[in-house]
Amino acid sequence: MANYSIGVDLGGTNLRIAAVDEQGALLERITLDTQVKLGRDHVVRAMCGAVQQMVSKHRGPGTLRGIGIGVPGIIDMQTGMVHESPNLPDWADYPVRTEIEKQLGTRVILENDANSAALGEKWLGAAREVSDMAMLTLGTGVGGGLVLGGRVWHGMTGMAAEFGHTTVEPDGALCGCGNRGCLEAYASATAVVRMAKEAIARGGTTGLSAVRELSAKAVYDLAVQGDPAAKRIFTSVGRALGIVLSDMVNALNLPMYVIGGGVASAWDAFAPTIFEELRRRSMVFKATDPERRGQGNPGQASTKTTITRSRLGSDAGLFGAARLPQVNGS
Amino acid sequence: MANYSIGVDLGGTNLRIAAVDEQGALLERITLDTQVKLGRDHVVRAMCGAVQQMVSKHRGPGTLRGIGIGVPGIIDMQTGMVHESPNLPDWADYPVRTEIEKQLGTRVILENDANSAALGEKWLGAAREVSDMAMLTLGTGVGGGLVLGGRVWHGMTGMAAEFGHTTVEPDGALCGCGNRGCLEAYASATAVVRMAKEAIARGGTTGLSAVRELSAKAVYDLAVQGDPAAKRIFTSVGRALGIVLSDMVNALNLPMYVIGGGVASAWDAFAPTIFEELRRRSMVFKATDPERRGQGNPGQASTKTTITRSRLGSDAGLFGAARLPQVNGS
Repeated sequence: MANYSIGVDLGGTNLRIAAVDEQGALLERITLDTQVKLGRDHVVRAMCGAVQQMVSKHRGPGTLRGIGIGVPGIIDMQTGMVHESPNLPDWADYPVRTEIEKQLGTRVILENDANSAALGEKWLGAAREVSDMAMLTLGTGVGGGLVLGGRVWHGMTGMAAEFGHTTVEPDGALCGCGNRGCLEAYASATAVVRMAKEAIARGGTTGLSAVRELSAKAVYDLAVQGDPAAKRIFTSVGRALGIVLSDMVNALNLPMYVIGGGVASAWDAFAPTIFEELRRRSMVFKATDPERRGQGNPGQASTKTTITRSRLGSDAGLFGAARLPQVNGS
Repeated sequence: MANYSIGVDLGGTNLRIAAVDEQGALLERITLDTQVKLGRDHVVRAMCGAVQQMVSKHRGPGTLRGIGIGVPGIIDMQTGMVHESPNLPDWADYPVRTEIEKQLGTRVILENDANSAALGEKWLGAAREVSDMAMLTLGTGVGGGLVLGGRVWHGMTGMAAEFGHTTVEPDGALCGCGNRGCLEAYASATAVVRMAKEAIARGGTTGLSAVRELSAKAVYDLAVQGDPAAKRIFTSVGRALGIVLSDMVNALNLPMYVIGGGVASAWDAFAPTIFEELRRRSMVFKATDPERRGQGNPGQASTKTTITRSRLGSDAGLFGAARLPQVNGS
């Protein structure tokens, strides 16, 4: 058996754990209910129990290279504390890394879930061919991940890549972070539902008004059927993403930007607006636009800016967490 | 004599050349009129002549480590061509690096002027103590520079760090780049003058209306004297800078952001608004605010986000260009 590592993807509703070998082959995976409502102590105990079971099961010729854990929150790398996690409300300022290490009796690598997803896409997904890439995960919130030189870019305290809180409209919609007009307030599943409610309140939205339970998926289904109000909502999603991606392309000039998370399923509905905004707002994109570059310099992949959907889907964060001990070991 | 390198800062009005030793000591400097109106061939010839003279003068025990040239424009690192340089209009798509290397008979390192300024501040200025930093230069336009791990971060094609074209107001003022609402349209000297003219046109601006020749400096002098309209203009400058710095802090989590260029002289007039915006818009800044961190953890400089004025002023780009052969050699 090959050497392997354990990845944990700790979500608001699911806790997923996988053993993955060094080539990226999945050896085993399990999914537990996170039961956030039972409190962090319960969640940490359940997670540590399941990890220990998996480790003893795979004890053998292969060596455990380490354990990586993706957490939905901003992590202070120096203290191993979680700041601001709306999905894990009682975790704020809790020494989660220390607690897990105490229960497991070994060191673990804690990482923001969107950084893990970025690393997963870089390792086995859409960004396999590049060393530098960024990721946006469109879920309940909007997460961001940045990989430079094949490793997660943490910045000074591990809080980098909070692209979801880039200001899109300085006096715009209120965001969960307290700021106004963040990307997250326009491109998360929460934002899609809010915009649908606002449209219904304004009136004249026969399609949206008939939806029994509003969700980002229900709004997307209507948009695909041609409902004008639903289509306008995804134009807003695309506009906000296009503005932030223009800023990112201008700032970082990376070869690859990957969009994942549940809302990425609506790619067809919002992607055209992203590219319109990029061509309007980013000189750097215009100079590296695959459609323009592609004609003059075929094969020069390394001078093109690619913006694409996640390839690993909801597994990006799980594989990325398993990759952490291999590239971001402490 | 110590080993040395030559730095060139090619501006729209001045061409400055310096010989600098490896410790950063200035051996010699000269300033020529750029005479952009005489055309790029004239400028390149004048520059190469002056560089050659300086090299022969310093021929001796010290070795020339290389020549770095800061240019006000986006540079394609692969081709050595300048894209989009409003200050050097006839340089677009001109193979400037090849031409200079032909005339000098040696390789040179071409760099965007704001990247050079960032490297200068990192080497000898405000960012001496950190490895990772970003710079904004507020001049005729707004330039940006990014240094990661002590080296200029170029991105895929050398076009990274165009922070001046971050969107601040999606439907805002028209920018020279064709986009609307870029930072440059609110925080450059050009923008200050435009906002002053707009204020005069709206009426009731006795102070501004009395200024004979409007300049960013004249507007600042009025602001210092308490003129309300002039003060409001610098509040707009600070707001735009605060929004973009919030985005940068959220995205990169760097320890240091340096603001230079001529408009940085008005620091007192716009800086308070920057910090207001940062505390409103950046969770990452709030978690690393020197005022907050400073109280609880004295001495923990590496967990604080510092935003400060350039220390080298107009020499940052010149020293940075001389530093290029030492850290970004090709």
